[in-house]
Amino acid sequence: MGRISHLECRECHTQYPAERLYFCPSCFAPLDVKYRYDGVRWTRSLFQNAPRSLWRYLDLLPIEDESKVVDIGAGFTPLIKATRLGQELGLRNLYIKNDTVNPTFSFKDRPAAVGVSKALEFGLKAVGCASTGNLAAATAAYAARAGLRCYIFIPREVEPEKIAHAQIYSPTIIQVNGSYDAANRLAAQAAEAYDVGVVNINLRTYYVEGSKTLGFEIAEQLGWQTPDHIVAPVGSGALLHAVSKGLEELEQIGLIGSSRVKFTAAQGEGCAPIVEAFRRGSDTVEPVEHPKTLAKSLAIGEPGDGIYVLRKLRECGGYAEQVSDPEIVEGIRLLAKTEGIFSEPAGGVVIGALKRLVEAGKVDSDETIVCLITGSGLKATDSLIPYLPRPLTTEPELGQVAQIIGR
Amino acid sequence: MGRISHLECRECHTQYPAERLYFCPSCFAPLDVKYRYDGVRWTRSLFQNAPRSLWRYLDLLPIEDESKVVDIGAGFTPLIKATRLGQELGLRNLYIKNDTVNPTFSFKDRPAAVGVSKALEFGLKAVGCASTGNLAAATAAYAARAGLRCYIFIPREVEPEKIAHAQIYSPTIIQVNGSYDAANRLAAQAAEAYDVGVVNINLRTYYVEGSKTLGFEIAEQLGWQTPDHIVAPVGSGALLHAVSKGLEELEQIGLIGSSRVKFTAAQGEGCAPIVEAFRRGSDTVEPVEHPKTLAKSLAIGEPGDGIYVLRKLRECGGYAEQVSDPEIVEGIRLLAKTEGIFSEPAGGVVIGALKRLVEAGKVDSDETIVCLITGSGLKATDSLIPYLPRPLTTEPELGQVAQIIGR
Repeated sequence: MGRISHLECRECHTQYPAERLYFCPSCFAPLDVKYRYDGVRWTRSLFQNAPRSLWRYLDLLPIEDESKVVDIGAGFTPLIKATRLGQELGLRNLYIKNDTVNPTFSFKDRPAAVGVSKALEFGLKAVGCASTGNLAAATAAYAARAGLRCYIFIPREVEPEKIAHAQIYSPTIIQVNGSYDAANRLAAQAAEAYDVGVVNINLRTYYVEGSKTLGFEIAEQLGWQTPDHIVAPVGSGALLHAVSKGLEELEQIGLIGSSRVKFTAAQGEGCAPIVEAFRRGSDTVEPVEHPKTLAKSLAIGEPGDGIYVLRKLRECGGYAEQVSDPEIVEGIRLLAKTEGIFSEPAGGVVIGALKRLVEAGKVDSDETIVCLITGSGLKATDSLIPYLPRPLTTEPELGQVAQIIGR
Repeated sequence: MGRISHLECRECHTQYPAERLYFCPSCFAPLDVKYRYDGVRWTRSLFQNAPRSLWRYLDLLPIEDESKVVDIGAGFTPLIKATRLGQELGLRNLYIKNDTVNPTFSFKDRPAAVGVSKALEFGLKAVGCASTGNLAAATAAYAARAGLRCYIFIPREVEPEKIAHAQIYSPTIIQVNGSYDAANRLAAQAAEAYDVGVVNINLRTYYVEGSKTLGFEIAEQLGWQTPDHIVAPVGSGALLHAVSKGLEELEQIGLIGSSRVKFTAAQGEGCAPIVEAFRRGSDTVEPVEHPKTLAKSLAIGEPGDGIYVLRKLRECGGYAEQVSDPEIVEGIRLLAKTEGIFSEPAGGVVIGALKRLVEAGKVDSDETIVCLITGSGLKATDSLIPYLPRPLTTEPELGQVAQIIGR
């Protein structure tokens, strides 16, 4: 008897055994992994000598056989007290969860590590995904470490730089003569036809569990407390939902007193379907046909977990904010300038959203706030260059530098 | 009475108080920081609840006032058992020290964190460096976090992409109308004239101490043992020297039984002055006038610590290997393909050197070997693109994919 109890439909609550299911066969809604919790005496001291990675929470993750764990050291990333950024914004208890320092430099290490481990446990020989960004790199890296074949499906129109990071891990890159949707569809068909574990499709039920470790870590790093407020970047909505699920699980086993957190969902203008729905007071998300935002990793026009994010925001009294491209760049630069952390555009969205919350008086200066910074700015440096100031120039003479330094 | 005992000349062994000295006033050789060690009862359990960063070793670092520590979470990076790479090379106890996951994505976080902290302790108002690479980014980031002004000196010929990472932290970039040497000279003059803490010049004595934490961590992560062999990338030679110093300090305080390690110094062909000197059996290093290697971060034609690296290699029975550009790329790809770790070219040099050691029968298959992977490949993705294979292409039809996947 393992640690997973069953899979449960998020809508009709039908229960299923923990097999290779990725949607509810009766109502097609997503499935959540439910755990037994009875094999472990849950105490905080459990974690004192635990591995310094997300695998410290193995007992709360959907891998039954520890020998299948694929580990490059993802997770347990720093939670940094952001004193200088806080001063800038008038916030006294601001924290940055720095997920840029994962092995493939984004939070996608978390779900990819769990998804690829689960593929090993299921005895699959190949994994894959349709992605050109963080997920492609993470999936290819964990497949490499595991020694599994890996197929990355990409659309026709992709610049070589976008895919180079994933390519370095030597997956098979399959460029589909069509759109991103076409690539995604082909990946889903290949998953069925050739028994490929496409992590965010037919392994999704397990894969998303990796992201909840962000919630576990935040609580543990705050001394087994939840913050008052978490600002999360939202693409599909899976991350926000997973972090919330993680905190609820910690409450359930008594490691934290309450999982009550206010969430803010942050999106980029030009692809903010969840923010728009929240503002309309609607329960349904209108797809965005042509996403257009600097925050490419959030440019998901039809967010799979959109309705669950909306439910969560309403239940917790949270907010939804959208941020323009210039605000994204300003957010990236402000975070770097005050705290020395270089974020990809998704993190600029988060800082921009936080700034908007402050300006609108939606946060209290004493609230404990955690900003999720989910990927490294090195992945998008080129797109930032147009916004950077030109260097000062000088002749190589000390006297000339006086004007610059000697003030 | 603080933890620093004194500064000591590496050549004439004259002792000086721990002030702002960066070379021996009598013989111009480098100075090393020496510690008292008597304020602490040194036991391994000291580190059980220590911070998960290089600051866990604060008692062994040259900062007297803990309130001056500038911390973004650098260090205590994963030491990964490299089973698949080991199999590929016929090595049973191979480890990767993954310093790509530091806050600015290279090992330079370590000396920059210590250098900028020391600048705060000295009461300086500004720091800086002459660099276009890892050091520029790290110095700018720690200055940002500390709230210090920061001046980055760069030469005339630099592509905007090279400097963008540092720029994001909003230092003042000073582009000197001249060569890298001219930029370096101007930085040194400004350090003197305007009381700027140029981390790798007038703060060098303290700055280099940060790098020895790599040695501390390797020993601690191996269960307070030294490995048999460390393969280190060598530019100035400061890193190899510092790692060796760190292990000697651990032996001195009794945390490890012996600091005996065989070192291999790895350089890129086209800038391998230390390898050349080692092969000649010479004690002196002939400068390389025009360094030319893919491993830009190692392209230092006149290595400051070259003679100390040579001494160390001879004393420990170590090796020196140089690696061509194609071998560098092959090393990067091999590491990524087997272990899911994406290194900058310096790490490709290390893996290439290891491969040469194996082929020459210089390592035993049971030796415990640690490869220092010192920076993220995301910093040099563009230079790798020409070496990557083209993606396979397909129409968006399942039948077409059969040829690729269905084997």
